[in-house]
Amino acid sequence: MLMKFAGPYSHFRVGCSILLADGTVVQGANVENAAYPVGTCAERVAMGTAVVQGAKKGDIRAIAVATDISPPASPCGMCRQFIREFCELNMPILMYDNEARSTVMTLGQLLPMSFGPEKLKTTDEVEHGLSQ
Amino acid sequence: MLMKFAGPYSHFRVGCSILLADGTVVQGANVENAAYPVGTCAERVAMGTAVVQGAKKGDIRAIAVATDISPPASPCGMCRQFIREFCELNMPILMYDNEARSTVMTLGQLLPMSFGPEKLKTTDEVEHGLSQ
Amino acid sequence: MLMKFAGPYSHFRVGCSILLADGTVVQGANVENAAYPVGTCAERVAMGTAVVQGAKKGDIRAIAVATDISPPASPCGMCRQFIREFCELNMPILMYDNEARSTVMTLGQLLPMSFGPEKLKTTDEVEHGLSQ
Amino acid sequence: MLMKFAGPYSHFRVGCSILLADGTVVQGANVENAAYPVGTCAERVAMGTAVVQGAKKGDIRAIAVATDISPPASPCGMCRQFIREFCELNMPILMYDNEARSTVMTLGQLLPMSFGPEKLKTTDEVEHGLSQ
Ligand SMILES: [Zn+2]
Ligand SMILES: [Zn+2]
Ligand SMILES: [Zn+2]
Ligand SMILES: [Zn+2]
Repeated sequence: MLMKFAGPYSHFRVGCSILLADGTVVQGANVENAAYPVGTCAERVAMGTAVVQGAKKGDIRAIAVATDISPPASPCGMCRQFIREFCELNMPILMYDNEARSTVMTLGQLLPMSFGPEKLKTTDEVEHGLSQ
Repeated sequence: MLMKFAGPYSHFRVGCSILLADGTVVQGANVENAAYPVGTCAERVAMGTAVVQGAKKGDIRAIAVATDISPPASPCGMCRQFIREFCELNMPILMYDNEARSTVMTLGQLLPMSFGPEKLKTTDEVEHGLSQ
Repeated sequence: MLMKFAGPYSHFRVGCSILLADGTVVQGANVENAAYPVGTCAERVAMGTAVVQGAKKGDIRAIAVATDISPPASPCGMCRQFIREFCELNMPILMYDNEARSTVMTLGQLLPMSFGPEKLKTTDEVEHGLSQ
Repeated sequence: MLMKFAGPYSHFRVGCSILLADGTVVQGANVENAAYPVGTCAERVAMGTAVVQGAKKGDIRAIAVATDISPPASPCGMCRQFIREFCELNMPILMYDNEARSTVMTLGQLLPMSFGPEKLKTTDEVEHGLSQ
């Protein structure tokens, strides 16, 4: 697949590939908007596509992010949080620079002491006024 | 394709289908996050997938949004803005309720007097201090 | 108050003033981020400040948005949705251009057939499986 | 000031206080939206208010976040990124639980190898086709 970029505002091209357990690769790119906060990053486009196609926690083996700068760019904090919902903390995130050199960190290293689903009250707790 | 939903927080299932000029349909669903503002809506997942696959302004013929409530839900303002970047103002947005009854509005009707790319200064204007 | 702008990426200066029923004016400006989607708009900064200070639905009389272009810019769709949560549909939104000429629209005109709180299931409905 | 919360969807109350170099404290709380991704967190409300009032990099001495759970919640990834734009990496972030016990981490510890402004091309580089 020849992936298309839609980043006319930042002039920053980012590509993301998600490797699933069955060998499938799902791709994303940044999709920007004239109202900057409304745009989205490559990582969230790729992950949204993967989740809608059925990927669940445990199905995602690795995420790779590529940009045309060096040293390589890392996912922004918003993407680290988005990924956190669907990936194990020990999942590797590979970051590639403009010469295809890579750095690797786990999700847990990039988002230490993360906020996640287990922090929220369940519907049942809300209903019955239980405190966590 | 059996589409997967990831909306455990709102308990609100939203599906979106984008019809392209070549007859292809691209699908999306809401993908939520424990940090609520980090999640994304069905319309943006579908549109992000379509844009990365190459859809450009003029390629998108219609967008359909389905929820299990009645009357049907409309796209949130953030999604209207996201769609605005890639679609003509006269593109129809169909909204389906839990009985598959639909309401239709154009993008221009749902986002009147919209903010778009033509409002931003070009790089050249920024460089040379031209006013718009 | 001399308001500060933090919009180094879009080079687009936006100011927002919210008029409360008691005559108070709360101000905001766009606060951008190197990761573009993480930044926020003037309208949401102003409204966030107002809500934290205690403004509730019914307390907000008008919202004014000023930019240095002409014709004036309108709030992006994300901001229309954010405002929708706390304002009546007949509240006026004034948009000022670089010569202080203004256009006015109501919130309901800028976000027709809007998505709002009444569309979501209550905790009680989720708990007991009631459909809306 | 008696701070108001607007978190009817997550039922999760978060308060944030930003300590400035001149001793001023700026406060925020989560401001949620029926369209979940459109809402915002306590940290971003407080920081947006502070920036509009004139706080710049170097002016912010500490950020405290309080929730009514234990162990204390940390800022979401999106807020870590938002804060990153305006704070030094060695700035302390204090996280308080429901008994006012706190944990402290620096911004750099919470967002290692962060994405920031220095990664983006300047307007001049874009204009003249320079690579980074
Ligand atoms: Zn990102
Ligand atoms: Zn939406
Ligand atoms: Zn906006
Ligand atoms: Zn947050």
